[in-house]
Amino acid sequence: MILTVTPNAALDITHHLDRLRPHGSNRVRAVAERAGGKGVNVARVLHALGHPTVVTGLVGGITGRAIRAELAAAGLTDRMLAIPGESRRTVAVVEESVGDTTVLLEPGPVVGVEEWERFLHHLDTLLPGAAAVVLSGSLPRGLPRDAYAQLLRHAHAHGVPAVLDADGAALRAALPAGPALIKPNADELTAATGLADPVAAARALHAAGAGAVVASLGADGVIAVTPHGSWHARGPERLAGNPTGAGDAAVAALTLGLVTRTPWPDRLAEAVALSAAAVAAPLAGDFDPAVHRALRPRVNVRHLAPFAAEEPDPCP
Amino acid sequence: MILTVTPNAALDITHHLDRLRPHGSNRVRAVAERAGGKGVNVARVLHALGHPTVVTGLVGGITGRAIRAELAAAGLTDRMLAIPGESRRTVAVVEESVGDTTVLLEPGPVVGVEEWERFLHHLDTLLPGAAAVVLSGSLPRGLPRDAYAQLLRHAHAHGVPAVLDADGAALRAALPAGPALIKPNADELTAATGLADPVAAARALHAAGAGAVVASLGADGVIAVTPHGSWHARGPERLAGNPTGAGDAAVAALTLGLVTRTPWPDRLAEAVALSAAAVAAPLAGDFDPAVHRALRPRVNVRHLAPFAAEEPDPCP
Repeated sequence: MILTVTPNAALDITHHLDRLRPHGSNRVRAVAERAGGKGVNVARVLHALGHPTVVTGLVGGITGRAIRAELAAAGLTDRMLAIPGESRRTVAVVEESVGDTTVLLEPGPVVGVEEWERFLHHLDTLLPGAAAVVLSGSLPRGLPRDAYAQLLRHAHAHGVPAVLDADGAALRAALPAGPALIKPNADELTAATGLADPVAAARALHAAGAGAVVASLGADGVIAVTPHGSWHARGPERLAGNPTGAGDAAVAALTLGLVTRTPWPDRLAEAVALSAAAVAAPLAGDFDPAVHRALRPRVNVRHLAPFAAEEPDPCP
Repeated sequence: MILTVTPNAALDITHHLDRLRPHGSNRVRAVAERAGGKGVNVARVLHALGHPTVVTGLVGGITGRAIRAELAAAGLTDRMLAIPGESRRTVAVVEESVGDTTVLLEPGPVVGVEEWERFLHHLDTLLPGAAAVVLSGSLPRGLPRDAYAQLLRHAHAHGVPAVLDADGAALRAALPAGPALIKPNADELTAATGLADPVAAARALHAAGAGAVVASLGADGVIAVTPHGSWHARGPERLAGNPTGAGDAAVAALTLGLVTRTPWPDRLAEAVALSAAAVAAPLAGDFDPAVHRALRPRVNVRHLAPFAAEEPDPCP
């Protein structure tokens, strides 16, 4: 079983309309809603691939109830912890005449120290059954900056490898606790390191404590810096669609690769293909199986030049 | 007790942010939510004025539960009927740097014939205790066009005078059933009659079956066409603020005037003052008591020339 942790789980609401008139009154034509947050999206992809998953995190209030009702409807195993605060909503306003989307992100609940302690104990009851744990997304207000480092230490105590998808201060504070893998995107790489070159930035995060760094670069695919080598993997073409959830699909593929000890080039090809298949599906957490099958053998994986920490430089 | 009926009750969500970036990802700074729909707003104003009210209408799903939780928190007496569909949300995105608002209106549930029959029976149990009934707002999908006419006939059967605040086809189909009072705004007047002149349009709606017509004209105040005369009432100045809910405050004032048989000029002065006090309050259903008190004696009410249906023309 793969456990996914979504500290700031959300109800993702999608409003479909022809065109958004700012400062006007807009009648929404159709409404869709589902449970969201990056960890939930990762679990949805793993579940669709037939892999047993358990979803945990913090949910509260009436929005929390709506999140849990949708998790049940989707067939996901829900071990969320209920808190007193009200879970956040996200609203995606899709303009069908324009093909573009405006997103509103509520801040979510404020989590108290006592609730966080309860969650750490709750996690300790779930980790013994996990082959890997995915820690994903933003942290709710009120949590310590090193909240992900704390979760990582609990995973280590149970011998469970952890994949972390976080950014900014939460990511930097977590690196010393040694996540097995992190998956920043290009902006997060630069924000975390101040380096514009993604390979140099990934190497810096690897040096700061991440077991492996796989950075998603959109249509340019992924680069990976690992103790076994560095690679660049990319698909044959740029796909149109909804990029939200593409990173979560990549995390799902990389976590499966970690659990099954698949060779790195194959893990990366799978991450690129599944990520592209997620772009081709309209909702985050979904992927297009036909695109996945078609792209998988067409992903190009190229070895990058070794660097100091990987192999001794023959010409010092 | 005044009964308010909100067939398409809503959860009104307000998102506060600095500036909305269309086609971008927007972090919401603060979130507020409350039960809404025009009838609920009217009840909130009556409740704040100390008048006993009962709130009914149709609510369903998890959003329906959120609506009911907020009604209870606000101290309103909730006799909503639960239906299987999911109640609608409205999202008002308030840009604080611009002072402007973008509104998204979900369509709401589809109501079946059997649920509508249940609601008519439910209404029959509430009408015996009512001094007046307010029928307000849009109709959910699935209802017959003459749904308001049906509600009006049930009110008549119990001898309860009805105030109707509806527009378009729902308004036109309701007129033959003889509401005691309707309160269109300027756009609704024109849409219902095709007439640009508000007094002529109000007279046409009076002739079509409305006992009295009070039309709200924004900063120009209100005009009234009644069997006892026609008036124009307006406040001393234009107020800045949130016009949403101003019409509902006017309906509250006019319904109180109906119940207490207050002379028309006083009813209209109260409607204008309470409406302006609602503009001065940030949320629909609230009003600023200081503005209400200060404006009330300063509203100017002017008698309009009589017309044919009111008094015989002395010079034919």
